[in-house]
Amino acid sequence: MNYPALMTDLYELTMLAGYFDEGMHEQPAVFDLFFREAPYRGSYAVFAGLQPALEYLENLRFTADELAYLKSLGLFKPAFLDYLKGFRFRGKLTAPPEGTVVFGQDPLLTVEGTLAEAQYVETALLNIVNFQTLVATKAARLSVAAGDGTVIEFGLRRAQGPDGGLSVGRAAFIGGVRSTSNLWAGQTYGIPVRGTHAHSWVMAFPDELSAFRAYAECFPDSCVLLVDTYDTLNSGIPNAITVARELKDQGHDMLGIRLDSGDLAYLSKEARRLFDEAGFPGVKIVASNELDEHVISSIRSEGGRIDIYGVGTRLATCSGEGGGALGGVYKLVRLADQPKLKVTSDIAKSTVPDRKKLLRVIDPEGTFLMDIMCRAEETVHPGDLVYDPTNPARHKTVPAGVRLEEIRRTVMEQGRILHPAPSLEEMADRCAEQLKRLPNGSLRLVNPHRYKVSISPQLHDLREALITAYEKRQPGAV
Amino acid sequence: MNYPALMTDLYELTMLAGYFDEGMHEQPAVFDLFFREAPYRGSYAVFAGLQPALEYLENLRFTADELAYLKSLGLFKPAFLDYLKGFRFRGKLTAPPEGTVVFGQDPLLTVEGTLAEAQYVETALLNIVNFQTLVATKAARLSVAAGDGTVIEFGLRRAQGPDGGLSVGRAAFIGGVRSTSNLWAGQTYGIPVRGTHAHSWVMAFPDELSAFRAYAECFPDSCVLLVDTYDTLNSGIPNAITVARELKDQGHDMLGIRLDSGDLAYLSKEARRLFDEAGFPGVKIVASNELDEHVISSIRSEGGRIDIYGVGTRLATCSGEGGGALGGVYKLVRLADQPKLKVTSDIAKSTVPDRKKLLRVIDPEGTFLMDIMCRAEETVHPGDLVYDPTNPARHKTVPAGVRLEEIRRTVMEQGRILHPAPSLEEMADRCAEQLKRLPNGSLRLVNPHRYKVSISPQLHDLREALITAYEKRQPGAV
Repeated sequence: MNYPALMTDLYELTMLAGYFDEGMHEQPAVFDLFFREAPYRGSYAVFAGLQPALEYLENLRFTADELAYLKSLGLFKPAFLDYLKGFRFRGKLTAPPEGTVVFGQDPLLTVEGTLAEAQYVETALLNIVNFQTLVATKAARLSVAAGDGTVIEFGLRRAQGPDGGLSVGRAAFIGGVRSTSNLWAGQTYGIPVRGTHAHSWVMAFPDELSAFRAYAECFPDSCVLLVDTYDTLNSGIPNAITVARELKDQGHDMLGIRLDSGDLAYLSKEARRLFDEAGFPGVKIVASNELDEHVISSIRSEGGRIDIYGVGTRLATCSGEGGGALGGVYKLVRLADQPKLKVTSDIAKSTVPDRKKLLRVIDPEGTFLMDIMCRAEETVHPGDLVYDPTNPARHKTVPAGVRLEEIRRTVMEQGRILHPAPSLEEMADRCAEQLKRLPNGSLRLVNPHRYKVSISPQLHDLREALITAYEKRQPGAV
Repeated sequence: MNYPALMTDLYELTMLAGYFDEGMHEQPAVFDLFFREAPYRGSYAVFAGLQPALEYLENLRFTADELAYLKSLGLFKPAFLDYLKGFRFRGKLTAPPEGTVVFGQDPLLTVEGTLAEAQYVETALLNIVNFQTLVATKAARLSVAAGDGTVIEFGLRRAQGPDGGLSVGRAAFIGGVRSTSNLWAGQTYGIPVRGTHAHSWVMAFPDELSAFRAYAECFPDSCVLLVDTYDTLNSGIPNAITVARELKDQGHDMLGIRLDSGDLAYLSKEARRLFDEAGFPGVKIVASNELDEHVISSIRSEGGRIDIYGVGTRLATCSGEGGGALGGVYKLVRLADQPKLKVTSDIAKSTVPDRKKLLRVIDPEGTFLMDIMCRAEETVHPGDLVYDPTNPARHKTVPAGVRLEEIRRTVMEQGRILHPAPSLEEMADRCAEQLKRLPNGSLRLVNPHRYKVSISPQLHDLREALITAYEKRQPGAV
């Protein structure tokens, strides 16, 4: 995607103008992008949005129209507007691959460059990564809830804006949703597309059976019939079975039916029984209607026989407790070769200073145990004491016998993308594989196990020293 | 905006292919777009999204790339793909102007055309109107809650996708939000843009006072200082007052300060007092940090002294009870010159058949009393009995002395837009004016007065007759 340079908040530009005026714009700076709490009150998130973010950074430049608009605001001096003509992002980006399972406090993106370029890209990076990660995480929760069932994304009509629907298709695929109803997402990202017909199709014919027959005639090998326009059990399913028989006589297999109202657990069991008794064990049962991970989970716990869950609104808009938005933030951690810290009276909101590595602690079975942030030049070993970044009084020891693996790599240098984009399938595979390696209880939908993210001894000491130095300058302020 | 033809659900196209195959695609059809319940558990919504919807309809065509993609799916016959080359929307659209206050069950858009064209545009129209109406409604609620204060939209970084942020800027303006931080929305729609600086600006300087001085030097006439990086009352506000004095000595007025954490009611009162005592009664107090209409209302009820509310996440993502998505639907109401009805066992979900007018009942003082749907050729008078569409047992009499005003007009004919687009200011003025004309209690944030939308005697009789006819064909089904 090619996002405009003006897809940002005005304050990025006023700050940029200020740094330019002060002669500070070329100071080397490091920013971390992270979220504090996993969305949906869950334990994890699925990182997504890197490739669109990289493409944004690589293509960032102001067009003549944009510069004319900025001039018209009357806020900026001519020398600054001139400087913007040649403005590019020429910095460095460090990130995990998309589809990586990540946790609250993990630095996701680290952006290094001049203060000007690293600050300016804040809003766009947050917009892209916040939403894609939020959707991928919702999709993972849905896929986990669906077990052997598959999930299809149906949300375009209720998505938050046209392109919201497009982003949803991409990120949902990374999180484990296998296909979409959205043709634009299908065309743009090569995601499989699925769909059948609406109630209006049935209403356009004299009766339901003629509507089903016409649809089957047109799509004999991909026929999924919506059976709840009038009465699911007394009309829809019997008519669908009639059509399944007629298709079979012509050498075709009916693909499935879709339930879109009523008690989906009960209706799916009845539908399964009726189709099995009629000799059609292969006909799939698709269900939709305000589904989310909690509804899917309860349908399955009641023995519902749904093969494919069509999830619309609640996936596209990431609804649910702790949903709707991911609270990603973008914080300055180093400037002009000095580590930087935002000190607040709430230690949980104080940042972790300096350029850092993100290590994942993995036990001999391959299970992820915890994440540790450390300084770029530091090494952490089993036996070391590590600290909770939101409460330094809590610490724990890195267990013996574990591996520590760096989970991020440099993905952009001097403003150029370093690696070819992995396919969405690779990202989805990574996500599915990593979800299996989480500690017991992490996948629980409600009150899951809390995964620990810690800071290393050196980062802990650095942070304490910076807070002490700050308190000396401003006694009693913290 | 130019939305792609493939911004739709696959099922719109499979249905189109089916109608084409059956020779039904040119039957005249009428669809209504409406929602059943106002969002946010409120009593009203603010209609928005018409102009983008009109532009979508007028420009709708399949590109060669899109046709090649559709061919690659292997689902469609060559004759149908050929037909799509010349496919256009050549129908008629009826709608209220944007900024009109509307209610659950009101037909917002009525789309008339061939079955093919009127069905195909369902998903895109829902996507555009659902989200824009949802945002405009949230913005209206925020503006009402803010009273004499103004509201700025700050949500791009948490919006659901890049273009989600753009739609937000437009629709929020219609609902009463006066400006945006989003430069892209500013450039695209001419909305005033606002913004100051981030915490990182303060952290980039040796201390807060130097950071404030540098910012004021760069923007002496539009300087808003963020005062909570370290300590609002002990550091931020005193430093801001120092800078306000320095600016004054140079002949400039400091515009304001921004509070972004802590108890905003208390801090705003203290800030007001301190600035007033220092001789700066004109310095504005801006506040942000997880604001919504309920928070704003409670800050005001505690005597908070905030002049400008910056609302981000909760406006951009339309969060809150009954938020996140507007449940707009698109229903076939007439086909091949016959009124159509979707009969369900839940009468509240049965549709209201036929092409119709939407009348607003207005008392002599100009207050809106109720809305009435009637048949296109019908006239409704004071004294007539009208019926609740969700429960026909409930009816009421149109009061004496009222005016009945048709609130929609034909906005597109033969696929061409009929009227020049009103300005966003006109839409915002309409909204503000209409909000004042709602019955008492309608603007209450929680448990508001419920506005009545009724159906006319003829629509009631038609609906009963269609249900009876349906029951005769399918005894016991309803």
